[in-house]
Amino acid sequence: MAERELPQADFAELTVLEAEFEDAELEIIRKAEALHAPIYRKRAEVIARIPHFWSLVFEQTPPEIDNFIQPSDSAVFADCLETFDVSRFELEDPNGSPRSFSLKFGFSDNEYFEDRVLEKKFWFRKAKDWTGIVSEPVLIHWKKGKDLTGGLTDAAYNLFEARKKLGTDTSDGKARKRETQLPEHKILAHKIEKSLESSISFFGLFAFVSGYRWVSAEESQKVTREAKEKLEKVQQGVKMEGSEDEDDDSPEEHHQEVEVFAGGDEVVTIIVEDMWPNAIKYYKSTWDEEEDDEDLSELEVSESEMMMDHEDDESDTDTKVDIRALVGKGRKSDQSPPAKKQRQE
Amino acid sequence: MAERELPQADFAELTVLEAEFEDAELEIIRKAEALHAPIYRKRAEVIARIPHFWSLVFEQTPPEIDNFIQPSDSAVFADCLETFDVSRFELEDPNGSPRSFSLKFGFSDNEYFEDRVLEKKFWFRKAKDWTGIVSEPVLIHWKKGKDLTGGLTDAAYNLFEARKKLGTDTSDGKARKRETQLPEHKILAHKIEKSLESSISFFGLFAFVSGYRWVSAEESQKVTREAKEKLEKVQQGVKMEGSEDEDDDSPEEHHQEVEVFAGGDEVVTIIVEDMWPNAIKYYKSTWDEEEDDEDLSELEVSESEMMMDHEDDESDTDTKVDIRALVGKGRKSDQSPPAKKQRQE
Repeated sequence: MAERELPQADFAELTVLEAEFEDAELEIIRKAEALHAPIYRKRAEVIARIPHFWSLVFEQTPPEIDNFIQPSDSAVFADCLETFDVSRFELEDPNGSPRSFSLKFGFSDNEYFEDRVLEKKFWFRKAKDWTGIVSEPVLIHWKKGKDLTGGLTDAAYNLFEARKKLGTDTSDGKARKRETQLPEHKILAHKIEKSLESSISFFGLFAFVSGYRWVSAEESQKVTREAKEKLEKVQQGVKMEGSEDEDDDSPEEHHQEVEVFAGGDEVVTIIVEDMWPNAIKYYKSTWDEEEDDEDLSELEVSESEMMMDHEDDESDTDTKVDIRALVGKGRKSDQSPPAKKQRQE
Repeated sequence: MAERELPQADFAELTVLEAEFEDAELEIIRKAEALHAPIYRKRAEVIARIPHFWSLVFEQTPPEIDNFIQPSDSAVFADCLETFDVSRFELEDPNGSPRSFSLKFGFSDNEYFEDRVLEKKFWFRKAKDWTGIVSEPVLIHWKKGKDLTGGLTDAAYNLFEARKKLGTDTSDGKARKRETQLPEHKILAHKIEKSLESSISFFGLFAFVSGYRWVSAEESQKVTREAKEKLEKVQQGVKMEGSEDEDDDSPEEHHQEVEVFAGGDEVVTIIVEDMWPNAIKYYKSTWDEEEDDEDLSELEVSESEMMMDHEDDESDTDTKVDIRALVGKGRKSDQSPPAKKQRQE
């Protein structure tokens, strides 16, 4: 090698450092969860006394979430969404990831579906050529004529069950090819194609599987183990052979053909990283939009907001925050949420 | 009050919870820094042996940063940028904030300026109606005819010094009004107006003051203290009077008239939160764009990337990562950085 080239030793050290950064990230997530846990518990207690808290929060979310909530979804939330909870259920699981999380929606008795709880779990998994979150479709027991997804959640659930029954190895391109011959696959693909004509319900999120393809726990653990072994060799200075990574993926395959809720991974990430920690801010913003600035600037500022500009200098003199005055602007608990500020469809 | 209105007690509890969330955020920043510190130290040791590491990283940053780096800036970086460091210098300062940070650029002897170190500090501060980072202009000792900012860093520095000499209270709208009569103010405003005709150099960032207006440490401490007292009253259930927040800001004033580098707060935040922790990833991406996916998915995934899609299924079969092969693609250390993938101007 020419003397000016980057020595392999330096490259290996960078690779090892990257792995150390990732370990630190996971530890930071654990520590952050430990610090947040008691505050989230207290918040849940206060929220339990506030009617429509979560439906108002979902109304006030940024467009990245709000654009996926249709007016009919808002009506359901306003009518019966009682609790909402996010948990990182694999925080201490050696075979899992602190990046995995679950969204748990609690509903009162309602005209739309039989379920009182809908829980959607997202697992952080690794394939050879991809890393991200995957999820299993959740069956919603829609009441007759009330399915807001037009059968998409049912169809996605049915395909997933058929795959399980067959024991399809989703890391195997040929096996996935065979899966496309299943009647459940054809039905779901057809329904998705039809659904593209109109906006999909937010409840379609419960059918979400992956931004790539389904990756099983077994596949993810195998890939993680292999990556770890590779890293150990790098640490020991063993030269790697390019041939050791055989990949049986079919590159021509279009993985997203049977994904009901494309972009669902991004939406839930924003829910978990922004809406969930900042729910109080979003709730308060339903009470008085104009008075946000000062109140927020004094009492809570999230990492992502630290550059927040003062949006409206012109109204400085009449935007004093008076908590009593804010409270005086009570919203009746049986009203629907307010009209949205923005909806981009 | 009507019985369906939100009780003040609940509102107060939400406000208290928000303050607890903010305290938790600050503690998480401290813990994250403690976990990262040894890895950053090791990284600095490895990087010291790699020519052009940081100039290549700045080349490969996302458009949010890259768009602010002009070709002439890249030439300077490639020529003489030797070290780069980010530190949170108020991590344990009871009057400061863990959100404050500093960027420190180390240069070799060069034809552009006399400085071997340029350090830019950003303080997280609070005004009554705003929260964010502010900074003092840093004087760059440009060599004759080499000032890439056309005198903007000098002019911003001069105005700031004049303000210091006058002891201007920047929280006082009238005092700021008087400041606009200073010759230094007129010169800077004029230079900025002229500079709008072309793209400003990245070195203009050293002149950045604020996305709002300069907020002094004293003002920020006063506002923080008052917010804390207000919070304590809320905790004790004392009803707040709307009249207590007198604001002497002149709402009609255009604060940004003398800001050289508008959006500088956003740019440095992305540098600190994305480029700095993920520098190795960006550096590696200069070696081989196509082979990124697999390598990254196995060994390092930052929080913000957890949804990373597999961008190019088509090239699956020929994107095996072989570290030896990557290293074989050495770049000569006296070459300029490679052409950019994208530049949106």
